[in-house]
Amino acid sequence: MNQKELISLLNDVQKNNITPESAAAKLKTAPFDDLGYAVVDHHRSLRQGVNEVIFGQNKAAEQILGITKNMLENGERDIIITRLSHESAEYLSDKIPLEYHKLPKLGIVNRNKEKPQTGNIIVASGGTSDMFVSEEAALTAEVLGNRVTRLYDVGVAGLHRMLSHLDELVKARVVIAVAGMEGALPSVIGGLVNCPVIAVPTSVGYGASFGGTTALLAMLNSCASGVSVVNIDNGFGAGFIASRINKMGEVK
Amino acid sequence: MNQKELISLLNDVQKNNITPESAAAKLKTAPFDDLGYAVVDHHRSLRQGVNEVIFGQNKAAEQILGITKNMLENGERDIIITRLSHESAEYLSDKIPLEYHKLPKLGIVNRNKEKPQTGNIIVASGGTSDMFVSEEAALTAEVLGNRVTRLYDVGVAGLHRMLSHLDELVKARVVIAVAGMEGALPSVIGGLVNCPVIAVPTSVGYGASFGGTTALLAMLNSCASGVSVVNIDNGFGAGFIASRINKMGEVK
Amino acid sequence: MNQKELISLLNDVQKNNITPESAAAKLKTAPFDDLGYAVVDHHRSLRQGVNEVIFGQNKAAEQILGITKNMLENGERDIIITRLSHESAEYLSDKIPLEYHKLPKLGIVNRNKEKPQTGNIIVASGGTSDMFVSEEAALTAEVLGNRVTRLYDVGVAGLHRMLSHLDELVKARVVIAVAGMEGALPSVIGGLVNCPVIAVPTSVGYGASFGGTTALLAMLNSCASGVSVVNIDNGFGAGFIASRINKMGEVK
Amino acid sequence: MNQKELISLLNDVQKNNITPESAAAKLKTAPFDDLGYAVVDHHRSLRQGVNEVIFGQNKAAEQILGITKNMLENGERDIIITRLSHESAEYLSDKIPLEYHKLPKLGIVNRNKEKPQTGNIIVASGGTSDMFVSEEAALTAEVLGNRVTRLYDVGVAGLHRMLSHLDELVKARVVIAVAGMEGALPSVIGGLVNCPVIAVPTSVGYGASFGGTTALLAMLNSCASGVSVVNIDNGFGAGFIASRINKMGEVK
Amino acid sequence: MNQKELISLLNDVQKNNITPESAAAKLKTAPFDDLGYAVVDHHRSLRQGVNEVIFGQNKAAEQILGITKNMLENGERDIIITRLSHESAEYLSDKIPLEYHKLPKLGIVNRNKEKPQTGNIIVASGGTSDMFVSEEAALTAEVLGNRVTRLYDVGVAGLHRMLSHLDELVKARVVIAVAGMEGALPSVIGGLVNCPVIAVPTSVGYGASFGGTTALLAMLNSCASGVSVVNIDNGFGAGFIASRINKMGEVK
Amino acid sequence: MNQKELISLLNDVQKNNITPESAAAKLKTAPFDDLGYAVVDHHRSLRQGVNEVIFGQNKAAEQILGITKNMLENGERDIIITRLSHESAEYLSDKIPLEYHKLPKLGIVNRNKEKPQTGNIIVASGGTSDMFVSEEAALTAEVLGNRVTRLYDVGVAGLHRMLSHLDELVKARVVIAVAGMEGALPSVIGGLVNCPVIAVPTSVGYGASFGGTTALLAMLNSCASGVSVVNIDNGFGAGFIASRINKMGEVK
Amino acid sequence: MNQKELISLLNDVQKNNITPESAAAKLKTAPFDDLGYAVVDHHRSLRQGVNEVIFGQNKAAEQILGITKNMLENGERDIIITRLSHESAEYLSDKIPLEYHKLPKLGIVNRNKEKPQTGNIIVASGGTSDMFVSEEAALTAEVLGNRVTRLYDVGVAGLHRMLSHLDELVKARVVIAVAGMEGALPSVIGGLVNCPVIAVPTSVGYGASFGGTTALLAMLNSCASGVSVVNIDNGFGAGFIASRINKMGEVK
Amino acid sequence: MNQKELISLLNDVQKNNITPESAAAKLKTAPFDDLGYAVVDHHRSLRQGVNEVIFGQNKAAEQILGITKNMLENGERDIIITRLSHESAEYLSDKIPLEYHKLPKLGIVNRNKEKPQTGNIIVASGGTSDMFVSEEAALTAEVLGNRVTRLYDVGVAGLHRMLSHLDELVKARVVIAVAGMEGALPSVIGGLVNCPVIAVPTSVGYGASFGGTTALLAMLNSCASGVSVVNIDNGFGAGFIASRINKMGEVK
Repeated sequence: MNQKELISLLNDVQKNNITPESAAAKLKTAPFDDLGYAVVDHHRSLRQGVNEVIFGQNKAAEQILGITKNMLENGERDIIITRLSHESAEYLSDKIPLEYHKLPKLGIVNRNKEKPQTGNIIVASGGTSDMFVSEEAALTAEVLGNRVTRLYDVGVAGLHRMLSHLDELVKARVVIAVAGMEGALPSVIGGLVNCPVIAVPTSVGYGASFGGTTALLAMLNSCASGVSVVNIDNGFGAGFIASRINKMGEVK
Repeated sequence: MNQKELISLLNDVQKNNITPESAAAKLKTAPFDDLGYAVVDHHRSLRQGVNEVIFGQNKAAEQILGITKNMLENGERDIIITRLSHESAEYLSDKIPLEYHKLPKLGIVNRNKEKPQTGNIIVASGGTSDMFVSEEAALTAEVLGNRVTRLYDVGVAGLHRMLSHLDELVKARVVIAVAGMEGALPSVIGGLVNCPVIAVPTSVGYGASFGGTTALLAMLNSCASGVSVVNIDNGFGAGFIASRINKMGEVK
Repeated sequence: MNQKELISLLNDVQKNNITPESAAAKLKTAPFDDLGYAVVDHHRSLRQGVNEVIFGQNKAAEQILGITKNMLENGERDIIITRLSHESAEYLSDKIPLEYHKLPKLGIVNRNKEKPQTGNIIVASGGTSDMFVSEEAALTAEVLGNRVTRLYDVGVAGLHRMLSHLDELVKARVVIAVAGMEGALPSVIGGLVNCPVIAVPTSVGYGASFGGTTALLAMLNSCASGVSVVNIDNGFGAGFIASRINKMGEVK
Repeated sequence: MNQKELISLLNDVQKNNITPESAAAKLKTAPFDDLGYAVVDHHRSLRQGVNEVIFGQNKAAEQILGITKNMLENGERDIIITRLSHESAEYLSDKIPLEYHKLPKLGIVNRNKEKPQTGNIIVASGGTSDMFVSEEAALTAEVLGNRVTRLYDVGVAGLHRMLSHLDELVKARVVIAVAGMEGALPSVIGGLVNCPVIAVPTSVGYGASFGGTTALLAMLNSCASGVSVVNIDNGFGAGFIASRINKMGEVK
Repeated sequence: MNQKELISLLNDVQKNNITPESAAAKLKTAPFDDLGYAVVDHHRSLRQGVNEVIFGQNKAAEQILGITKNMLENGERDIIITRLSHESAEYLSDKIPLEYHKLPKLGIVNRNKEKPQTGNIIVASGGTSDMFVSEEAALTAEVLGNRVTRLYDVGVAGLHRMLSHLDELVKARVVIAVAGMEGALPSVIGGLVNCPVIAVPTSVGYGASFGGTTALLAMLNSCASGVSVVNIDNGFGAGFIASRINKMGEVK
Repeated sequence: MNQKELISLLNDVQKNNITPESAAAKLKTAPFDDLGYAVVDHHRSLRQGVNEVIFGQNKAAEQILGITKNMLENGERDIIITRLSHESAEYLSDKIPLEYHKLPKLGIVNRNKEKPQTGNIIVASGGTSDMFVSEEAALTAEVLGNRVTRLYDVGVAGLHRMLSHLDELVKARVVIAVAGMEGALPSVIGGLVNCPVIAVPTSVGYGASFGGTTALLAMLNSCASGVSVVNIDNGFGAGFIASRINKMGEVK
Repeated sequence: MNQKELISLLNDVQKNNITPESAAAKLKTAPFDDLGYAVVDHHRSLRQGVNEVIFGQNKAAEQILGITKNMLENGERDIIITRLSHESAEYLSDKIPLEYHKLPKLGIVNRNKEKPQTGNIIVASGGTSDMFVSEEAALTAEVLGNRVTRLYDVGVAGLHRMLSHLDELVKARVVIAVAGMEGALPSVIGGLVNCPVIAVPTSVGYGASFGGTTALLAMLNSCASGVSVVNIDNGFGAGFIASRINKMGEVK
Repeated sequence: MNQKELISLLNDVQKNNITPESAAAKLKTAPFDDLGYAVVDHHRSLRQGVNEVIFGQNKAAEQILGITKNMLENGERDIIITRLSHESAEYLSDKIPLEYHKLPKLGIVNRNKEKPQTGNIIVASGGTSDMFVSEEAALTAEVLGNRVTRLYDVGVAGLHRMLSHLDELVKARVVIAVAGMEGALPSVIGGLVNCPVIAVPTSVGYGASFGGTTALLAMLNSCASGVSVVNIDNGFGAGFIASRINKMGEVK
């Protein structure tokens, strides 16, 4: 609730359009539905431009269904469910229409297929093995209304592959660079483009990759200046941020 | 060197405007000055929109002076020197006009004071002790031509202070959130605004803050969706990225 | 055995009510039952006000049963078994009346249902996914005779949800703040209330959450002053400590 | 600002005692003084029962002085400055009356010497080398109005020393257990007393003590149930929490 | 693409043997086949003397098959597939002739059995338990055309075993030293031979071996001067590097 | 092979009892049987007083059987197999007489039941959950011919239990102190006895116990002076060392 | 205080030789002198065979002097002060006769020069740079009455040097193996001797030695069976333990 | 001492050219000079082709001088002293002719200036700040008789700089790739060349570079196949190994 809404509510109080007690109650309860195990925030899309997203990990299939239904009843669209296990996805798709992407374990409900995809986000990834993350990023960005180009398997040890896409890279408005192992991709891309680069470390690797920690650290220490980083395997986060940035230049 | 320039160069070769050998040489050496200890890239501002920035740490004052002079001779402006020790700053300011900011150890040379400051970047920080980082971010963004608002000492344990600036926060185009200790500021801000948030962990704290590692990890695990992270104490990087994002909406 | 009991025992020796040898023997063996694989301490509730609690992890179902029976034979009530696997719970419930809570893997035996629940402990948690920990805390506190209010899914990225419960929070005698990921909840609550806050990091998260380590570190570095921390996922410990604190103000 | 105050303010708005705009402004700015580098919160003692405490580390002496003076001008008493370097302490004591404790680097300004010290907090520490932390805890608790007993050098390798104080330990309302190296003191004490134990790991040790990390981890894993933990060397935090707990039983 | 090839291509452009546009296209696409999920680099063997190697981990059996077939269609031989799970190996061997080594999970396709094995590489390992790694190294080196001697179970705690092979060790051109636990083997061997030693830490051990981290660190700190290190369990990498070194002395 | 044996062998050479070539061969091959996957050292018991011990982890059941049989054929007794999985144990016991201890996963073959058990080793452990480690220590010591007393479940949080065995503790020649969680047991025992204490951290615990790392670190930092430490869960190692120490005082 | 003394004291109580109250007091205060900052335990040498040792780190010179004098007044001999800084040593030697060893920073007061040195402890170290630790071990053992042989600079990369001392090594009753970097020395020695080996990691090294952590981990993972480990740089601890073991075989 | 020498010595014994006792003595003492604090190995250059190298860190200037003199007296040349502090260098250069390189802290004594420099080693480094390491590598390789080309400041964020040297890179026999921060240089170079690449992580960076750990981990996880790694800042080691490899192709 921002300052403007607060003043407006206070004005209503002054004009006796609303009692102070109701105003306080309104401040307290309005935008939520409390399901016991979860509090669904229906004003998120007003406040932040995007629905609440359902983090599927550690949640029972029943809880996910409950939250999704509650959102559907509020008419929300493009509901994203991340880290949705295959089992939970099966459970859900028996009950509601679910678009499920197996590799990135991403569910989409009540997708708005007319929503135009605008701008220009590139999702580049180091290798085939990173696809479970890069697809999460790409799909998230698409659901949020962005045009996405995928450049997969362009890791730095085969520099020629990446350089062969240089013309596409330099035209991007945002680049999402996904890599495991030594995580060098964002540094190399970051030195070539002049748009923001969102680096996504993946847990791909073995031994001293420590589940993606090495890639994460490498990306945080990138000597290229335009690189910021999200959590290991957080394709969703990268797609979300890239969408915010990509949409900044749009005339509203 | 992008695809277009390559084709153009190849065209020149075909038209005998240039021999293949010279073309190869040109591809190889053009945009650099090799000082022995450093290779200065004068095309960076063409390719990436911003000059090369001098990372002062572990460089001798003489080396920094050499690089700076070389850039000045090439007519470069708004030269930023980060992590410039007080001693090196003194050495430099005897030789060239230097604008030096003590707290963030930031040097600026040949500043273009007419450059307009546009857009709207907020630099919010958790406490007074973080100022050496938040000032590095704010000054960097200003030198790069952005309008910056500083909200310092608005840490999450005194939520009222931050909420009192909510109206300014929700109007920002980018927020840089700087915090040490538990690094919770970006999560709280990220839940309130709908623009990208660049999180900067600082080394402020003691004991189990492990030189900023705790804040870094916390920010990477932010449950707010629009948050990406840079290295510990990397105010410069945050200012640089925020600038890139802030300038995206501008008509060019 | 405290000083007073020691002097009393020594007095008995002096008065020849007991031989020195028996006194030494008494000092040595009295309050325990040695089951071979475990030594059950029946004086714990005298000395510490609470029964010994059975830590179920890494113990065979047979051992847990043995200890429980031994305690039952000594008339102990409100026996808590933590980290009781579903398999062991099934094994036990065939042999003795067992109240088993699946999510937090908590067993309760010979519960005293008349024990009044007094005081006011709030268990607040960041998200639905943390419930396996927050329920362990809440149930523990209830078994120990405390009144408990649950505020679940009030994470800091949706600040409005937590603020909507501010009136309840400020009235609490103790708050248990349970959170995974960046672990910021205790800091924000700690800045709003004036009672002790027990912070419980959970292993909820992925990537750089490192199994709850990030939340743990963040909580230890809280910039709010009234926060102390227990081990990752240690809902039991938090409930136990909260109970001790909550009961301090009671007239005895 | 709690629910009650909000309703009261809203009532004032309704009764035209105050305009909505002023109400909003009041909500925004009232309790703070913004010094540029710091925002001093004068309502902290109302809201949380204790003044804001000044964290001296990484702050310039001038900034500390500025904040202190601002608090003095608002009539605040018992102002605590933690991690106050010897140099800053000297600078301050030239300008304002300062009670400075060298070992724990603790400053106290405008102490209320009439404030009675009540209750019963024990500060136990493992060794002489931990005194810089245990004194910070003890002094903090005393300034906040608690009676404190010091039991220093009672480490677990000389169990007899600690057991010789068992009668005092079992009478405490809260125990602060301070230890470096293997950090076993809170576990042993926690098994003997029935009040809350606040464990404070210290950075005393060498090699694999890793600056107090070992003691911290050990304390978090205490097999005694009533133990919660604060950051390494955080004597202030322990004293503060112990005070909150100690005062719970008081008739108010 | 090296400098010579670039000049040659530019010459072709100048001589009108090729249009600039085609040259650019050639630069861009020539050596790759883009399978969607992977970009196969058929010039690797030209550029680096060895085929691309397929990293089997995290790849679907179908993807591995696709890449392998694509390489077979390009006439590539001695195709190595590392970290090939038993399931994927079964899937593949139904479709194409596959030589599969169970212990090191290594697949070889279209092996050139006439290729002579030259030079002299020793693979020494600390224990029987390290064989899954040492066999990966030995087989890789053999496929790449090197003569390999295996010295297994010659760990440092039984020094006599290793010393009994001293005459073979001192004649090697490269030694691959494979060890888990404390990882001391490369140090001891490194002090005895005068050829390069490639150290391979393995994940064999328990407790504070931390999945091979201890062996890795020990090897990096070797007090013997000729030792360089690869990732934990990276037998393939060691075999590959050893091959490069072993072949250096050959007349070409 | 020690200096004395070398001189003796050299004497034989001089006296023509043996040719130099055979002497060299003897030096090289004598005490081993090379099974391909393992080199069995039959002189270990001569050189070190104890047979080679078979580390079962990561070894195939067939390999373990092969090594065991080879040792049996050489007449070795009291063959210990550590970390022997239940599956491998079943496989072995079909082929050879095997004494198998399930909890510590310890196998014993061809046990010498007449060997007297002498001296006095105490194995003390913190809790029931540590038994898989403490039994490995106790059985190892017994097989090696030591008298062992078990004191289980005497953790520091129930100090009375341990103190009740003080008379036994002070009479021990060596104490093996086994503990998980905070690992404080060796410190407390180390302060009470005057014999060597071997500390064994266990992986028992959760959260910030990090698989026994916390207990390990705590034990390494013990403030009691007579404590040395072995790897996490290394009950075998502790039993072996304790045996060496216990046997030192024996008249030989 | 052991069981026997307790029974004896209880007997005195029974015989009215002492009142119960005095007995309790005696139990409580007898063996200590409380200096305020330290509690000196004068019965340590009775209970544990050795004086309390003064850990000099983090203690003020005045405190060290106070403790030393108190011990001198009680007639204690061979007082060891570890980690005694050069400054504190100078301060002390002005006041009391102090034998100070600069390299290991070890102080000895009131040394009993007639005490015979018996048994046979070898202190072996990897390199010249480890001498500050190996000398601490050697001197400690000598003060405690052991005969010590020093074998310095016998690191594993120069195996010949160590093997040249094999005859001395195999005759030792205990070996202290001191090494930094990869910490392999104890493994190699442990495979050659049949006495207990105390491993001491040192902080000698750089980069990934992490202040001795690598050596520590390597030693804990030693594949040689008779090795136990003390903290990084803990020469004193190793000397102390070695002394306990060395003296076990002595006729008393 | 290899097998051939042993047989030869044994032959001498058999022929009575030498007594067994002297042979044993010879085996024991021949190639060393024991200076008390160090054992100088004069046969190293025979056995390993290179003199012993003096590791200057943690050694007193007097010790370094002593070792150097001892080597000079044995006629050794090209004596390398690494990590030689400026103070020790000054001390030495007063006593013996010393070639001292300040940046890499490298000393050279009795250099053989006629030794030809052969082969082709490239030392490439990411930035000016890495020169203290890359110079150590380059100088070491030069002293050992290799031709060295330096390519400094060719970090991956300015790919054009490195690509401009591609023709030189592909002609190298070995490449030493030196980089701090994200350590990506070896991966990129490793994908372009077909010779061995020795990766040297440097401690250049800040925050989450953790003193070079990030670069180290990244290099160990390189997705390029020909890369092996040495310790952080270990320029000497890299130069030494590169020399061994470079010299393999030489006709001897």
